[in-house]
Amino acid sequence: MDIKEILNSLHTKIKSLPHQGEQATYIPELLTVDADRFGVYVANLDLTGIGVGDYEQAFSIQSIAKVLSVSLAYQLCGESIWSRVGVEPSGTAFNSLLQLEADNGIPRNPFINSGAMVICDILITALDDPKEDFLTFVKTIANNPTLSYSTQIAESEKEIGYRNIALCNLIKSFDNLNNEPDEVLDFYFNLCSLEMSCEAVAKLFLYLANNGTCPISGTDVLTLSQSKRINALMQTCGFYDESGEFSFKVGLPGKSGVGGGIVAIHPDQYAIVVWSPRLNAKGNSYKGMLFLEEFTSLTEQSIF
Amino acid sequence: MDIKEILNSLHTKIKSLPHQGEQATYIPELLTVDADRFGVYVANLDLTGIGVGDYEQAFSIQSIAKVLSVSLAYQLCGESIWSRVGVEPSGTAFNSLLQLEADNGIPRNPFINSGAMVICDILITALDDPKEDFLTFVKTIANNPTLSYSTQIAESEKEIGYRNIALCNLIKSFDNLNNEPDEVLDFYFNLCSLEMSCEAVAKLFLYLANNGTCPISGTDVLTLSQSKRINALMQTCGFYDESGEFSFKVGLPGKSGVGGGIVAIHPDQYAIVVWSPRLNAKGNSYKGMLFLEEFTSLTEQSIF
Amino acid sequence: MDIKEILNSLHTKIKSLPHQGEQATYIPELLTVDADRFGVYVANLDLTGIGVGDYEQAFSIQSIAKVLSVSLAYQLCGESIWSRVGVEPSGTAFNSLLQLEADNGIPRNPFINSGAMVICDILITALDDPKEDFLTFVKTIANNPTLSYSTQIAESEKEIGYRNIALCNLIKSFDNLNNEPDEVLDFYFNLCSLEMSCEAVAKLFLYLANNGTCPISGTDVLTLSQSKRINALMQTCGFYDESGEFSFKVGLPGKSGVGGGIVAIHPDQYAIVVWSPRLNAKGNSYKGMLFLEEFTSLTEQSIF
Amino acid sequence: MDIKEILNSLHTKIKSLPHQGEQATYIPELLTVDADRFGVYVANLDLTGIGVGDYEQAFSIQSIAKVLSVSLAYQLCGESIWSRVGVEPSGTAFNSLLQLEADNGIPRNPFINSGAMVICDILITALDDPKEDFLTFVKTIANNPTLSYSTQIAESEKEIGYRNIALCNLIKSFDNLNNEPDEVLDFYFNLCSLEMSCEAVAKLFLYLANNGTCPISGTDVLTLSQSKRINALMQTCGFYDESGEFSFKVGLPGKSGVGGGIVAIHPDQYAIVVWSPRLNAKGNSYKGMLFLEEFTSLTEQSIF
Repeated sequence: MDIKEILNSLHTKIKSLPHQGEQATYIPELLTVDADRFGVYVANLDLTGIGVGDYEQAFSIQSIAKVLSVSLAYQLCGESIWSRVGVEPSGTAFNSLLQLEADNGIPRNPFINSGAMVICDILITALDDPKEDFLTFVKTIANNPTLSYSTQIAESEKEIGYRNIALCNLIKSFDNLNNEPDEVLDFYFNLCSLEMSCEAVAKLFLYLANNGTCPISGTDVLTLSQSKRINALMQTCGFYDESGEFSFKVGLPGKSGVGGGIVAIHPDQYAIVVWSPRLNAKGNSYKGMLFLEEFTSLTEQSIF
Repeated sequence: MDIKEILNSLHTKIKSLPHQGEQATYIPELLTVDADRFGVYVANLDLTGIGVGDYEQAFSIQSIAKVLSVSLAYQLCGESIWSRVGVEPSGTAFNSLLQLEADNGIPRNPFINSGAMVICDILITALDDPKEDFLTFVKTIANNPTLSYSTQIAESEKEIGYRNIALCNLIKSFDNLNNEPDEVLDFYFNLCSLEMSCEAVAKLFLYLANNGTCPISGTDVLTLSQSKRINALMQTCGFYDESGEFSFKVGLPGKSGVGGGIVAIHPDQYAIVVWSPRLNAKGNSYKGMLFLEEFTSLTEQSIF
Repeated sequence: MDIKEILNSLHTKIKSLPHQGEQATYIPELLTVDADRFGVYVANLDLTGIGVGDYEQAFSIQSIAKVLSVSLAYQLCGESIWSRVGVEPSGTAFNSLLQLEADNGIPRNPFINSGAMVICDILITALDDPKEDFLTFVKTIANNPTLSYSTQIAESEKEIGYRNIALCNLIKSFDNLNNEPDEVLDFYFNLCSLEMSCEAVAKLFLYLANNGTCPISGTDVLTLSQSKRINALMQTCGFYDESGEFSFKVGLPGKSGVGGGIVAIHPDQYAIVVWSPRLNAKGNSYKGMLFLEEFTSLTEQSIF
Repeated sequence: MDIKEILNSLHTKIKSLPHQGEQATYIPELLTVDADRFGVYVANLDLTGIGVGDYEQAFSIQSIAKVLSVSLAYQLCGESIWSRVGVEPSGTAFNSLLQLEADNGIPRNPFINSGAMVICDILITALDDPKEDFLTFVKTIANNPTLSYSTQIAESEKEIGYRNIALCNLIKSFDNLNNEPDEVLDFYFNLCSLEMSCEAVAKLFLYLANNGTCPISGTDVLTLSQSKRINALMQTCGFYDESGEFSFKVGLPGKSGVGGGIVAIHPDQYAIVVWSPRLNAKGNSYKGMLFLEEFTSLTEQSIF
């Protein structure tokens, strides 16, 4: 069975499974999305690609954007960023304040909310016009000039984001932010509001399957070593307190977002994106996890 | 530069670096070992191999044995074992009781002490003569009939193992042990007392580089899927609360022991073992970590 | 309404209330007790006293004994005991290991299990024949030669006391025990197995209402300052994580046991003991708490 | 020795002791106060009183105000307030977020910051003009028309109060605030900025020594039962994670503030206030604690 057949048959099979989980409710605007959407796209290093289902439909990439922001910070500031955010799995829920307090304001990794906020702070200091410059960075990588933030999503999250405000002020109280919490949060909520299709995300993330260089635009996003390290981080920390489970069952580095998207990387081969809005108890796409587990089982192609 | 040259030059370079860290003191018997020992062995899938330094000297493999015990339990009992122990990184020190209490007696993964005790309990129930049968299992895999437990090490650990006794009784209090704590601890301390050389461990672990089948003896230790999953577990959980760091810097699945040994697997290629008794603050071999980091940097051969 | 009328009417009223809670199940032997027992005794400083209901029936005083053991240790070793156990409320359940780990093996106070074990360790070191000498100490205070440990209760608790074994070994691992955990636990389980009636306990505890001197035997158990301090400790720590609630509603220093007994002290006035075996969710006697709350409301006699 | 002599000799003795601890630095404006100030005032129920040292000098009462705010909320809303804030000691530092997360946004008691914020929220909902009405409430109790908030202190705290902003937003994220965090924090910072002398505070707090009625103005602040309960709360929770220590050594219900003030109540007798700005490691006045410990030792007059 070739990849295309596998994708099609898995899409059909998993789309028809009974629903489990619910869409994230804490960002009201996300609830306007049709919960039955289900798209998949595989982008290969040779620039070929295959899409199934709603792969051309844009969705809110949410925390998937955290891979892009840490990539830009790594490119701009090098290894120094790791003095302000760790590289260890957190072992706790994505928005826990417990660990931050125990660790004196140093977030465990850049993929939990607190860590992503520290990365935002680093970017605000490093960039002239953070929101605009970040968007340009993303557009350039994959030659994709049409990307934009969703003001509605960002505002929707800001309005009831009390826990994120708490997190951000807690980090500030530990002196691990150079900018004011309000500014950091504004940038953070905007990053997460990026809207892209499965196809666009998969193509964008090909640089992580290609040792740091995007094969589409030729942009050198990261060095070989940096690229491997971001993959390693996704492997251990990409799915909050379900990171071990994803690594165990899927066997690829990946990152999820509460919009229901998941990106996974097979180094030297492909980037794959799945999108299905209903989330499991840990906040990761229920059918997305299932799809990727069966996909790597059938292709026998995990990194392990 | 070929692998042999890389190994030799790295061995020379890192052996001459100033010492950092100390040997584990909580098992008095381990202190009888010469702290300056430094050995490396790479075992390739084609059954060739290269050793440097003290690679033929037997050392106490300690927690490295936890990969062997979970492999045997997985072989004997299949996926059912994951209802009693998780597959998530713990985010805390190897002997923490905190998480066990929060998680109602289900250890986060089989590589922290509590998880390894649950695996021991599973094996005690599944095997006729646990200590003898486990030793036979290990001997068979790599055609290595000379292995044995070190009674001195096991007794030395038992005498002052108050924290492990605490852990084991806590698990029992949550009803996650079928056997008595004393019996579980006796088996546990014996497993960890296995003594082997870098070469012996590397050859033994080739089954994890070969989709579950040992290329030396032809033994089918695990299925392809099981083998990938154990590698994934080592990737996310093999180094206690330094697992992210090892994944980030070395980029291979691996497991350390407080005897100063580290095994790492490059799937489809090789198993590598480094031994240097002085440990860093997280309880992992200081020079072992360093060696492996530089080794995968020079060979540009991590799984990411 | 005089005290006798208040006691009688409250006993009648609360005895007839619907049952809530259950007897402690973790000590199987305790389940042999009739759960409907309900006794009260008030012992006054002038050696008069009033009993209602099952006040002459002996019950397992369990943790109430911790007040006696800390009193003896305080008498023998003075303020030095507070370097090994604190005087702060724990804020967590009585058998939590969390805090012990965070506090490096120094229990928060002598009334949680871990703290009582440290006190047992101090007594084992200080006494020639700990179990015998402690019993003599208790018998002497109240001129009561008939007291004894219940071997069945002690054995019953030992058999399944995995959590207490865990606690005790954890303290030992932090070097806060001079004797072996097995010896400490044996003494601890025996202390808790003391059997006494409401009347006997109330008379025994009069020394804490009388600035340290038992008015019955004239024994100087504690100095005035020590006596006040033990009362203060009961006020803040006597009811595990319900200590604030008891202080808030009853307003007297007191101590509960899982056998369903509660002793409370009104300094310079009386000691009162209530016994009703069914426990609320926090492990304190449901009807005992209720009785004392209404008693101090009706008599308007709390220390505040 | 009469009370006056005791006060004078203790003041002389303790004033001359070497300094320990530092003033709170997290509210910059507090640092403008002379750290050597040392005042004491005892207000008796018969309206006599004795002052020593700087007892007429106004200081920032800070958290002492939390007793006043919970008194007003208790008066206005009765027992219903305890569904939103507990009555248990916290066992952790005054500004910990850990427990709030574990307890789903219900603060342990009204004297830790989070609990005081919930009380502020209750008052904002209950009062027409919260800041003005609260001030009137305080002025009325002790016939003291000159009290006011310190705008400088309130603004000083607001500017760098990131941790309190974090706490307040965390509570809101658990739905335990009806008003917006900004409004709650503004009220909270103002309450804490009240400035009063030892004499003024001692007279103001006499209602808690008098079963709820202020003997100066005759104001019924609380019922007898409510008054006893607020005293009980101060006893168990008035000094953050040093509450047990204060209860143990001083034996009176009390409350401290980071301005260096401490108020303690001897029910049916007096209210005493000590002020000395340098704080110990737990955030309570170093010399204030010492003074009160020796005072109750010499007078042999604790509630126990």
